[in-house]
Amino acid sequence: MHLPSPERLITLTTDFGLRDGYAGAMKGVIRQTAAQALVEDVTHDIPPGDIRAGAWALRTAVPFYPRGTVHVAVIDPGVGTSRHAMVAVADGQFLIGPDNGLFSWLFSQADIFTAWRLSDRSWRPARVSNTFHGRDLFAHAAALLVQEGDLSAVCGERVDPVIEPWATVKPAPGEGRVVHTDHFGNIVTNIRMPHESGASGWKVELPRLGLTLQGLHRTYGDVDEGECLALVGSHDFLEIAVRRGSAAQKLGIAPDELVRVFASSE
Amino acid sequence: MHLPSPERLITLTTDFGLRDGYAGAMKGVIRQTAAQALVEDVTHDIPPGDIRAGAWALRTAVPFYPRGTVHVAVIDPGVGTSRHAMVAVADGQFLIGPDNGLFSWLFSQADIFTAWRLSDRSWRPARVSNTFHGRDLFAHAAALLVQEGDLSAVCGERVDPVIEPWATVKPAPGEGRVVHTDHFGNIVTNIRMPHESGASGWKVELPRLGLTLQGLHRTYGDVDEGECLALVGSHDFLEIAVRRGSAAQKLGIAPDELVRVFASSE
Amino acid sequence: MHLPSPERLITLTTDFGLRDGYAGAMKGVIRQTAAQALVEDVTHDIPPGDIRAGAWALRTAVPFYPRGTVHVAVIDPGVGTSRHAMVAVADGQFLIGPDNGLFSWLFSQADIFTAWRLSDRSWRPARVSNTFHGRDLFAHAAALLVQEGDLSAVCGERVDPVIEPWATVKPAPGEGRVVHTDHFGNIVTNIRMPHESGASGWKVELPRLGLTLQGLHRTYGDVDEGECLALVGSHDFLEIAVRRGSAAQKLGIAPDELVRVFASSE
Repeated sequence: MHLPSPERLITLTTDFGLRDGYAGAMKGVIRQTAAQALVEDVTHDIPPGDIRAGAWALRTAVPFYPRGTVHVAVIDPGVGTSRHAMVAVADGQFLIGPDNGLFSWLFSQADIFTAWRLSDRSWRPARVSNTFHGRDLFAHAAALLVQEGDLSAVCGERVDPVIEPWATVKPAPGEGRVVHTDHFGNIVTNIRMPHESGASGWKVELPRLGLTLQGLHRTYGDVDEGECLALVGSHDFLEIAVRRGSAAQKLGIAPDELVRVFASSE
Repeated sequence: MHLPSPERLITLTTDFGLRDGYAGAMKGVIRQTAAQALVEDVTHDIPPGDIRAGAWALRTAVPFYPRGTVHVAVIDPGVGTSRHAMVAVADGQFLIGPDNGLFSWLFSQADIFTAWRLSDRSWRPARVSNTFHGRDLFAHAAALLVQEGDLSAVCGERVDPVIEPWATVKPAPGEGRVVHTDHFGNIVTNIRMPHESGASGWKVELPRLGLTLQGLHRTYGDVDEGECLALVGSHDFLEIAVRRGSAAQKLGIAPDELVRVFASSE
Repeated sequence: MHLPSPERLITLTTDFGLRDGYAGAMKGVIRQTAAQALVEDVTHDIPPGDIRAGAWALRTAVPFYPRGTVHVAVIDPGVGTSRHAMVAVADGQFLIGPDNGLFSWLFSQADIFTAWRLSDRSWRPARVSNTFHGRDLFAHAAALLVQEGDLSAVCGERVDPVIEPWATVKPAPGEGRVVHTDHFGNIVTNIRMPHESGASGWKVELPRLGLTLQGLHRTYGDVDEGECLALVGSHDFLEIAVRRGSAAQKLGIAPDELVRVFASSE
C-alpha cells in the first residue's frame, strides 16, 4: 500500500508532557530520516500512562486528517516489555505505536483495519533503549514510512491488535458508560445518538446520582450558567455538560459511570 | 483581496487544551482542504471560556506575523448560539472566529479593519455540529481561504464586530486598568508609555493598595530578587513585575485593577 | 560555515508557557524574515526562569535533530542585563540564546563547539525591547541564519560561553548527583553507565535516605507497580524510577541529591 505522494504528514500523540525534550527528540529523529516530512503535534498532554485518555484523543482527532497521514502515538507504560510494537492501517490512516489498546477506539469504529508487528529489519537503529521506543522505534518507523511511501518497509507479521472492551459503541435508546471527561469538564458517553435526534424526544438518567435530564439541548448556551444539560456532542455521542462549568466536577462523575437514555415516551 | 502566494500560513489560538484531540481535529480538517498549508499553534492553553485572555494573546502574537497570515481563534463559550461566525482583515492579518469580542484588541489597535459574517455558501460541510464550530466552520473557512487565496470564497455580509470596552488604550500620564496577568505573573496595564520614557520621570500608583512605585526600570534584573518594579513591557504598555516572582500573586492584583501613572514632577 | 540547503528547520525551547502569545510572536517574527522556514516547538513549558531544566530539555532533544538545525532557546531571567546574546555551534547544531548556562549540557557533552556574541550589525530591528530578546533578537537572528545559510551574518566576537558545574558527566562506578526529575517523576543522575551494563553487576545508594537498590533493571515494567527501581535511562545516565508512579515524589528527591553506584562485588 502506497502513501499519496503529496502527503508526508506525521502527527504525534504522547503522554510525555513538554518539560523534558522527549517530544523534541522524536521530532529530531523524524527529521533525520525524512527531512521534508511535516510533523504536527496532536498532543503531548495525555495524563501519564492513561491509555484510555490517549485512545479517546486519537478517536477525536485522527479521522479528520487526510487519508495517508501517519499518526504516531506513544502512551506506553509497558515499554520494553513483551507488548508488540505495531503499525496499522484503519480507514486509510496509518497508525504507529505500542499494541496496548491505545488504538482501540480507532479500530472499533473503523470500517476496515489491518495491523502488523513492526518488522525486525535493518531500519532499526543499532541501539534501541528499553525505555524510549517513541524515539528509538516509532519515530524511525514513521519517518521511514513517509520517506518510502510503502508499508512493506516497516511491517512484519500480522497481528490481532488489542481492542479494549471500553471502546464499544452503544445504541440509543439504551444503556452505556461514561468514557471520557474532557478539558472543559464535559462528560462523554459511549452512547451514539441518531443524527437528527429531536430535542424533546429523549430522557437521560444517571442512576447512581438519581439524576434525570429531560430533553436534549442543541448547545451549551441553551441553558443558564451553572445548569446541567444533555446534548449530542461533536463526536455524535451523548454528552452531559454544565454551561460555563465542569459537569465532571459538579456531578462527581468519572469514566465507567452508568448512563441510560430513553425515548421520552417510555 | 488576495493572499500573497507564498503565504499559506494558518495559526491556531484556542482554549481547547491538549488532552482531547480537539486541536488535532482542526488541524486534520485544514489538511483535508489545504494539504500544503503550514499550520502553527499560537496556543491552546487560553483558560476555558476566557475571551479576554484570548484577546490579549492574539494582540501579543498576531501583529508579528507576515501580512496575509490567516489566524483562527476559537474561545467560543457561545458556540451554536446567535453570535456570528466571522472573517475579518485587520492591518493585513486575516482573522477567523466567533464575533464575541475575541478580536477586540486587534481591532482597537488596527489602523484599518473590515469584518464580514462567514458566508452560508457551499463550502460548509453537510453537517455542522452545534458545539464545535472550530472544527466544522472555522477550520474549513481558513483552509479554503489559503487554498483559494481570495476572501470572496468565504465572506458574507459586512458586520460591525464586537469590540469590548476593556480593549481601550490609555495615554500616559493618566489612569488605566490592569488588562492581563501573564504566565510569569507580570501585570500588564492598558496605559501606553511613550517609547523613550525617561527612567526617573514617572511615578506609578496602585490606589487600592496604597502602593507607589518611583521611576521606571529598564528590565527585571535592575532590582533585587522579590522586589517590585514598574517598566515598559515588550508590548509598549506599562507593566508591573516582581523580579523572579509573580507580581499578580504578591500584590493580589487581577484584571480591572485601577492604575495611575504620573510624571514625577506632578 | 554554511547550512545544508534543504535544512531550514528552527526549533524553539522557552519558559514562556502558552497563555500569552509570546511564543507566537517569536514564530511570527521568524516568518517575516524566513517565510519558508520550518518552525517546530521543542517546548514552551520549562518552569519560569529554570535555566537548569531548560538545559536538560535541550540536552535530551537537540542531539537528535539533523546537523544544521537552528535551535533557539530562551530561558532568560537576566534579559536586558549584561549577559551576552549568543550564537554557537556544537557538534553541528546551531544554538541561539542568552549566554547564561542554558547550553551547559550541550557544550559539556559536545565533541567540538564554538560560541560568538550576536553581532551588533544592521540585522537588528530599530527598537529592541529590554524584556523580550526572544522576539526582538533571537528570533531575528535565527531567521536570518536560515535565510542566509551563513553564520557570518549574525556572529560577532568569540566568547567562552558559561558552562555550569552541574553539567558534569560522572563515570560509573562512582558518585554523582541528581540533575533532573522528569514529567513522569523519574530521577535522572549525571552518572553515565556503560552501554552493556550487566543487570546484576551494580548497586545504587541514596545515602541521605539510607536506601540501597540492588541491580539494574531493563525497564519500568520489570518490577511491581509502586516499586522503586534503578535502570539506565534513554539518555545513558543512571535513572531511579517507580513503576507507574513518581520516584521524585515517593522518595522526596530533588536536583543535587547525592547518588552512588557501585559494582556489586564492592
